[in-house]
Amino acid sequence: GAPGSPGLKGEKGETASRYQSAFSVGLTARVPYTNLPIRFTKIFYNEQNHYDVTTGKFRCILPGVYYFAYHLTVYVADVKVSLFKKDTAVIITYDKYQKDDVDQASGSVLLRLEYGDEVWLQVYGDETDNGIYADNVNDSTFMGFLLYPNLDNGQ
Amino acid sequence: GAPGSPGLKGEKGETASRYQSAFSVGLTARVPYTNLPIRFTKIFYNEQNHYDVTTGKFRCILPGVYYFAYHLTVYVADVKVSLFKKDTAVIITYDKYQKDDVDQASGSVLLRLEYGDEVWLQVYGDETDNGIYADNVNDSTFMGFLLYPNLDNGQ
Amino acid sequence: GAPGSPGLKGEKGETASRYQSAFSVGLTARVPYTNLPIRFTKIFYNEQNHYDVTTGKFRCILPGVYYFAYHLTVYVADVKVSLFKKDTAVIITYDKYQKDDVDQASGSVLLRLEYGDEVWLQVYGDETDNGIYADNVNDSTFMGFLLYPNLDNGQ
Ligand SMILES: [Ca+2]
Ligand SMILES: [Ca+2]
Ligand SMILES: [Ca+2]
Repeated sequence: GAPGSPGLKGEKGETASRYQSAFSVGLTARVPYTNLPIRFTKIFYNEQNHYDVTTGKFRCILPGVYYFAYHLTVYVADVKVSLFKKDTAVIITYDKYQKDDVDQASGSVLLRLEYGDEVWLQVYGDETDNGIYADNVNDSTFMGFLLYPNLDNGQ
Repeated sequence: GAPGSPGLKGEKGETASRYQSAFSVGLTARVPYTNLPIRFTKIFYNEQNHYDVTTGKFRCILPGVYYFAYHLTVYVADVKVSLFKKDTAVIITYDKYQKDDVDQASGSVLLRLEYGDEVWLQVYGDETDNGIYADNVNDSTFMGFLLYPNLDNGQ
Repeated sequence: GAPGSPGLKGEKGETASRYQSAFSVGLTARVPYTNLPIRFTKIFYNEQNHYDVTTGKFRCILPGVYYFAYHLTVYVADVKVSLFKKDTAVIITYDKYQKDDVDQASGSVLLRLEYGDEVWLQVYGDETDNGIYADNVNDSTFMGFLLYPNLDNGQ
């Protein structure tokens, strides 16, 4: 008999944009504690709620490569802060406070995250390194987004 | 009869990359005005022309989630600047100038934009907060890009 | 006889995320040289190896629009640094060192790159502009990623 009909057309490829995970948050006031994740409670963007405002931690739900960045106002004391991934201090940013000055310190990094990995900012030191400042006209911010998701087809 | 031939390969998935909107611009000199959007006229990237060099405003044509960042040279006076979205000061960055010093101040944020939304940088204060500096060997820059477009299929 | 069975279903379409190119690197110590690309040897992410740790240069394999950013600790001397693309200083960041102070300087830019284009950071000046500092608790970092690839279908 005749050959069968051609097979069905393959599925449409996946869109990277189905995979969205991003947050952008800030402080409303100075942070008094040094030994805990900094809790940023001013929300600019957190639609997926992967940033937990009660713990201060971002939790990876969509594995892949992420970008993180922070911009901190340095006032009243030195700022020494680290971006932590799973209890490891990945990068450390230090800006020394000088009397009567105000400075800005920032950092950014790309990291591959697996499901459940947590990322946060924390003072790296004691109260002498605790000069991250914020009020209603001075922001200190933290953000991150999924850049390249791990797709089902092994990419 | 024999089985039919294999079906055609599926269509390429929709890519975020069909949805491109990005700009990266800088200053060529100090900005003398404080009550208007800062007009960055040195163009590093603006292929879609969504940043309007005549007004200093980025205008959203492709709705979605955008990343914005700026890096400012602090010299001659303090810098107090805000990223505005539709006449609202979303974030404010302050770096105090000290005599004989030069500093760098930066900020970044993620924002969901709708069609027509405008975003720009503007001095938040008066001429005492107007120390954003630039010349041929000192840059002050502003940039933004569409991170996650709103796709047709409801994402 | 009867017609054969239908052919196999076609392959799934391609996804934008097949186009990945990103790096995130840092210094482990001060950089003594001023007339060469800065070699960042601490690797946070470099899966595609498009950043060459032996030369300090990122080399474009996937043409498109890229984001680059750097965050530098200013200590011991002034920092004047440029992001170079193909031997052209694209942006220049200057932060002046003051005795007993530590500062942070950062920059970012979007650039369209063609295949083979190289991008790196280099001191813009002499040893008086060479104050980029790093040690085991102070980071200075450089990163970049492909934002919008040039796709085959002409986008
Ligand atoms: Ca300052
Ligand atoms: Ca300085
Ligand atoms: Ca300082």
